[in-house]
Amino acid sequence: MGNRVAIVGIGHSKFGKRNDVSLNELAWEAIKAALDDSGLSQKDISFMSVGNFGYWSEEILPAVTVAEYAGIKCGSLRTEAACSSGSAALKIAYDHITSGSGKIAMAMGLEKMYNSPNSTIIELIGRAGNYFWEFENFGLTFPGYYALYATRYLHDFGYSEEDLCEAPVKAHHYGSKNKYAQFQKEITVEECMKSKYVARPLKIYDSSPITDGAAAVILASEDIARKINDTPVYIKGLGNATGSSYLGKRDDFTGLEAGRRAAEIAYKSAGISDPKNSFDLLEVHDCFSIAEVMAYEDLGIASKGKGLNMLKEHQTYHDGKFPVNPDGGLKAKGHPIGATGISQAVEITKQLRNEADPGRQVSINRGMALQHNIGGTGHYAYVTIYSRGD
Amino acid sequence: MGNRVAIVGIGHSKFGKRNDVSLNELAWEAIKAALDDSGLSQKDISFMSVGNFGYWSEEILPAVTVAEYAGIKCGSLRTEAACSSGSAALKIAYDHITSGSGKIAMAMGLEKMYNSPNSTIIELIGRAGNYFWEFENFGLTFPGYYALYATRYLHDFGYSEEDLCEAPVKAHHYGSKNKYAQFQKEITVEECMKSKYVARPLKIYDSSPITDGAAAVILASEDIARKINDTPVYIKGLGNATGSSYLGKRDDFTGLEAGRRAAEIAYKSAGISDPKNSFDLLEVHDCFSIAEVMAYEDLGIASKGKGLNMLKEHQTYHDGKFPVNPDGGLKAKGHPIGATGISQAVEITKQLRNEADPGRQVSINRGMALQHNIGGTGHYAYVTIYSRGD
Repeated sequence: MGNRVAIVGIGHSKFGKRNDVSLNELAWEAIKAALDDSGLSQKDISFMSVGNFGYWSEEILPAVTVAEYAGIKCGSLRTEAACSSGSAALKIAYDHITSGSGKIAMAMGLEKMYNSPNSTIIELIGRAGNYFWEFENFGLTFPGYYALYATRYLHDFGYSEEDLCEAPVKAHHYGSKNKYAQFQKEITVEECMKSKYVARPLKIYDSSPITDGAAAVILASEDIARKINDTPVYIKGLGNATGSSYLGKRDDFTGLEAGRRAAEIAYKSAGISDPKNSFDLLEVHDCFSIAEVMAYEDLGIASKGKGLNMLKEHQTYHDGKFPVNPDGGLKAKGHPIGATGISQAVEITKQLRNEADPGRQVSINRGMALQHNIGGTGHYAYVTIYSRGD
Repeated sequence: MGNRVAIVGIGHSKFGKRNDVSLNELAWEAIKAALDDSGLSQKDISFMSVGNFGYWSEEILPAVTVAEYAGIKCGSLRTEAACSSGSAALKIAYDHITSGSGKIAMAMGLEKMYNSPNSTIIELIGRAGNYFWEFENFGLTFPGYYALYATRYLHDFGYSEEDLCEAPVKAHHYGSKNKYAQFQKEITVEECMKSKYVARPLKIYDSSPITDGAAAVILASEDIARKINDTPVYIKGLGNATGSSYLGKRDDFTGLEAGRRAAEIAYKSAGISDPKNSFDLLEVHDCFSIAEVMAYEDLGIASKGKGLNMLKEHQTYHDGKFPVNPDGGLKAKGHPIGATGISQAVEITKQLRNEADPGRQVSINRGMALQHNIGGTGHYAYVTIYSRGD
C-alpha cells in the first residue's frame, strides 16, 4: 500500500421523492455539506468520481453537470457498478490518493429515480440482470431474482415469512430515528405480513424503495488528514469481485459468491482474521430482506443458516452484539442506486466519530466498521473496512 | 508517485459495423488479443475497468457481462466520461496499480453504436451536451457544437473549408494502411469538399463515424513489467480536467479550455517543459476536423492559429516533424466512444514498440508519446504521456 487514506468530510441529502430539486441541486446538497464538514473548498479537490446508474436521468453526463454546478474543475468521471456504483466511486477516489495522483479527492453518488415512471424503472433494473435469457425469456425482474434466494433460504433453514419480516421491522425502527431517511415510521411484523406480495415470498415491506438522493465523502492522504479533521476515519482494506449475471449458473441460492470473495479479499487486506470480533458496526446491502440475512453469512458474522436467527434475536440492533444498518439501511433510509455506497460510508464515518443521532449511535469500542455493497444480485461486490484509530 | 506502471499487453478488434458479433464477443476479440500479447491469463488480472457509454447497448451492465464472457472474476466497474470513457478506464487501472491495490490490471473499452438507429444515436449524443438549454431549446447536436468552433477558427485565422479538409485526407490516408480501421480508402480534398454538409462548415468527411469496436490494454507494476514483456511502455504522466457543458459560458471558440488544463497537469507530472520537442507521436481526439487542429494548439505543439497550417504542410504525417494519428484517428479508424481512449493507448504502445504497419510506423527517437482524449466538447479532457525507456 502507498499513502493511507482517510475520510475527512461527509455530506448527505435527504433521501426520498425529491421532485423539489434537479439532479445538480440534489448533488449540491451532499457536496456542500461535505465541503462544510471538512472546511475545504472546491479548488482543493484534485479528482471527483461520481457513482450514478442514471438510465432515467435528465442529464446523461452527470459528472460534468454536477462538477460544473458545484464549481469543481478537476478531472472527473462517472462510475457504474449497478447498485454498488457508489462503492466503485469510493475505490477510485481511494486509489487516486494512495497512488499519489493527488492529495484530496471527492467520491459522490447520486440518483434521481423518480424521473422515470415506475414501470420503466422496473424494466431498466430488470435488464440489469441477465438480459437475454432471464429477463427477456422468463420476465424476471429484481424482486423475482431475490425471491428465488428467499424461497431457497426459508426452505433450507426452516424459517417463515414472519421471520423474514424482522428485517424491515429493524430497518424502519432506525429509519424513524434518521432525519435523512425516506421512511420514518416504525412498522410491525403484522403490518409487514399484510403488505402486498411483490414476488412471493417477498412483500412490499421486504423491498427497498425507489429513491432520489445524494451523498458525498472527501478523502485525504494521511499526512494532511488530521490537519483537516480531528477524527479522520481511515480506509483500512478493500475487496471487490465480479460474479455471474446469470442466476442459472450459480451453485448456491442461500448466499452471494461474489460477496464472499470480496469479503475474503477485504479481510486479507485489512489483516482481519476474526470478523465476528472486529467491528463496532456493519453497513450491509439490504435491497431485500433476504439480502441482509445473506450478507451476515457471506461476511462471516453469522454461520450458515443462522443469519435470520441473529436478526430475530435482535443481535443486529444498535445495542446488540453485531450492530447492522443503524441508519435504516436501503430498506428504510432508501436506495438511490448510485448514492447508496457513499451513503453507507457517510453513516460509518458518522458512527465512528460518535456523531449519530441518539437511539441509533452504536457503542464504539474497537473503532472498526465494515461496508458491504452489492451490485445486481451479486454481479458486483464491494467490501470496505474502516478504522477510526489508524 | 507510487510504483510506476507499464503497458504489457495490447488488443484491438476490427472497428466498423460489427453486426457479426455481440457486445461480449466484440470485447473478447480485444481481451483475448491483449492476454495473448502479454502471455498472461484471466486469473492474473486483479481489477478490470470498462470504458463504455452504452445508452444504446443490449447489455446495461457491460463490465459484468464482458467479465463473465471473458472468464474474469476480479473486481470491475464501468467508467463513463463521454468520449473519453476509455481514458478514464485507463486512469483507474493505472491508479489501482500505483496505489498498490494490485499488480496487474486491465483497462478495456467497447461500444456497439450500430445497436441503435442513427436518429437515436444523434439524439443521445446530442443530449450529452448541455441538455436543458442548448440541446432542448436550440436543437444543437454534436456536429453543431463543433461547427461553432470551426466557424470561429476559420474566420479568426483566415482559413478555408478546403484547408480543413486536409484533416480527413490525412486520416483516410492512414486508415488505408491500418487493417483495424473502419475506412480503408484514401480521399482527396475535392471529395471532401463535395461531401454533404452535416453542420456548416463541417461536412460528412469532417466528421468521425458511428462505429462498433473494442480495445484492451493490460497494465503491470514496474517490478514485474519487464518479466512479462520485453518492451514495456510506461505511463509517465496523466492530466485530467472537467469543463463546462454549456458552450454559452465559454470564453473561447478556437480551443478547448479543459484540454489545455489537462495538458498542463500532464506536462507537469511528466516533467515536460517543451512539448514541441518531446514526442515521437501524438494521438489526438479528432472527432471532427476542427478538433484535431485545436488539439495541436491546446497541447502546445502549434502556436495559436497555426495548427491548420501545420496540417496543410504535412508536418503531422507519420514522417513529418510532429506525427499525429498515424492509425487514421477517430475520423478513419472509427470512434466507438468507450473504446477510443484505449485504442489510442494501443496505437501508442504499438508505435513505441516499433510494431506498426509499414507506411505508418513513425521514427522512434525520443521514445515518448502523448495521448489526448476529449469527452463531449471539452466537458472532460484526459491527457496521458507514455515513455518506452523509463
